[in-house]
Amino acid sequence: MYAWRLHASLPKTAQPTGDKVWADVLKWEKVDPPPLPSGYVRVKLRSSALNRRDLWIGLGLYPGIRYPAILGSDGCGEVVEVNHESASKWKGQRVLLNPSLNWGNDERVQSDSYEILGMPSWGTFAEFVDIPVSNLHPVPEHLSDTEAAAVPLAGLTAYRATFTQGHLQSGEKVLIPGIGGGVAVWVLQLAVAAGAEVWVTSSSPHKLEKAQQLGAAGGILYTQADWTTELSRRAGSFHLIVDGVGGEFFPLYQQLIAPGGRIVVYGATRGNPPTLDLRRLFWKQVYIIGSTMGSPSDFHALLRFIQEKKIKPFVETTLPLSALPEALTQLWRGTQIGKIVLNH
Amino acid sequence: MYAWRLHASLPKTAQPTGDKVWADVLKWEKVDPPPLPSGYVRVKLRSSALNRRDLWIGLGLYPGIRYPAILGSDGCGEVVEVNHESASKWKGQRVLLNPSLNWGNDERVQSDSYEILGMPSWGTFAEFVDIPVSNLHPVPEHLSDTEAAAVPLAGLTAYRATFTQGHLQSGEKVLIPGIGGGVAVWVLQLAVAAGAEVWVTSSSPHKLEKAQQLGAAGGILYTQADWTTELSRRAGSFHLIVDGVGGEFFPLYQQLIAPGGRIVVYGATRGNPPTLDLRRLFWKQVYIIGSTMGSPSDFHALLRFIQEKKIKPFVETTLPLSALPEALTQLWRGTQIGKIVLNH
Repeated sequence: MYAWRLHASLPKTAQPTGDKVWADVLKWEKVDPPPLPSGYVRVKLRSSALNRRDLWIGLGLYPGIRYPAILGSDGCGEVVEVNHESASKWKGQRVLLNPSLNWGNDERVQSDSYEILGMPSWGTFAEFVDIPVSNLHPVPEHLSDTEAAAVPLAGLTAYRATFTQGHLQSGEKVLIPGIGGGVAVWVLQLAVAAGAEVWVTSSSPHKLEKAQQLGAAGGILYTQADWTTELSRRAGSFHLIVDGVGGEFFPLYQQLIAPGGRIVVYGATRGNPPTLDLRRLFWKQVYIIGSTMGSPSDFHALLRFIQEKKIKPFVETTLPLSALPEALTQLWRGTQIGKIVLNH
Repeated sequence: MYAWRLHASLPKTAQPTGDKVWADVLKWEKVDPPPLPSGYVRVKLRSSALNRRDLWIGLGLYPGIRYPAILGSDGCGEVVEVNHESASKWKGQRVLLNPSLNWGNDERVQSDSYEILGMPSWGTFAEFVDIPVSNLHPVPEHLSDTEAAAVPLAGLTAYRATFTQGHLQSGEKVLIPGIGGGVAVWVLQLAVAAGAEVWVTSSSPHKLEKAQQLGAAGGILYTQADWTTELSRRAGSFHLIVDGVGGEFFPLYQQLIAPGGRIVVYGATRGNPPTLDLRRLFWKQVYIIGSTMGSPSDFHALLRFIQEKKIKPFVETTLPLSALPEALTQLWRGTQIGKIVLNH
């Protein structure tokens, strides 16, 4: 089969603003997959989607990178090979892949052998991918292949952060800082569908507008002076903040959160906060809750919820698989808000 | 009636190492209580106990101090005056006082009008105290007046932190940093009674020894180099950390906590941490949970638990009420681990 293989990370000095920078390290080439392991099926991919994780790995900013790597955690395709009777019902089916491998038996946290599809295991930026039968799911019927590929990693992360860890209830007020990332947009769509009043922040008026089209009650530019005061004035305080940003914004959440509220953290694109106000934390009885990816139960629940609410992922850009370098560059620029999907 | 009244905080330069420093600001004097409000009863106090809160207020280190103040949040006594038929069953009863006033109806967090007994309301370092009927509880029968007075504030704070917010389960491993504070010792006793394996830290070998007498599985001096490595080697990782310390120790808890574990914060005697490792937080799916005081339900549950497990508070020092300045000085020195109780 053919696949995009990453042979090294970009040099530290490289800015991936042009597609050309990837040419030396990321190559479309023939690879021979090992025989299908027992309990696995082979899926011919129809669509895959990008996540920031792919970019971080390409930039060498991810722990434990192994080369060569076939990236890609999101995929929708058709089962073309099975090697066990019990998996035969999947043969020829259109499937969506749960990118959580070896979660384990504890709903609270992933096991030590947990992996995300696409490094170190082979990912979806390829013609085929081999995956455990237990990671296969029927595609919700109202979704095209392109839309389906935009679901797995970001949808799963958002579902667990919002519901399993964040315990969102209908009618609650939610803040999503830094709308624009794939997970943040999914949190927005899920929370709106669950009947929450959702507010967002961004540095981009364009993204605020898009978020409101997706159902946000309002948004605020965090680049404006005293934005927290303005946000509190307009929205009041928040029962739930779902954050992938961190950094210097994180301490502000303790002002914006309602007493007894929850701050769920699934990422930290701006790094660690300069401090944590413990007195405010305990006096307001606030929860700060870590969340990453999701369990098999979370993935089931996500697909049920998408089906029930007829949610369609927000796909902003569709490109052919051959355009992966261009897609990575677009992701690095960070101007889009919806998912970037590759059609195979 | 007579009461200890605080007329000002100690001057910033004063070190309360001797009893004399209190003479100018803390006075035993005659005060005339206002008429008993409707829904209140008057309790003649038999015993009261000190909490760090009393010291912080005396040192001017507490928000919103109003003078003159009658301090004291813990009290055990006898109901001597009621002004309503529905309260008449309490007349002459030995009672324990719940120091949480106006918690409100939300189990998750106290209301805006929440207060702790003893500033701004009159506290228990006095002959009598007036308190809402709903804050009265029968004293668990196995406790003397002296022992009972050591229960309320610290026991309530510990109960909520450990069970309501911390969700401690039998068989789990618990770490209590800085054993010696009243709440920390209560957490130790409650967690041991609940069937947990409890570890403690301190700078004092004497306190570690006392903690082991109270049922701790082991303890470690945080003054020794590389104490976290040694603690992990001996104890493994912790399902629950119940912390009133914070400061430079707080980031270490994220190494010591088990994946999916809970860090409950009820205080910050060493101030705020220099940072918070968000990546570790979300990857380990850790909870950081604020907790303060407790609801009426928490107080009920605490007394039931004490009764059922026949827990006796650890009273280390008993003094007469007249020795309040000496008791505050002893609390400031911080060498004792058990409660300081005043007999009236």
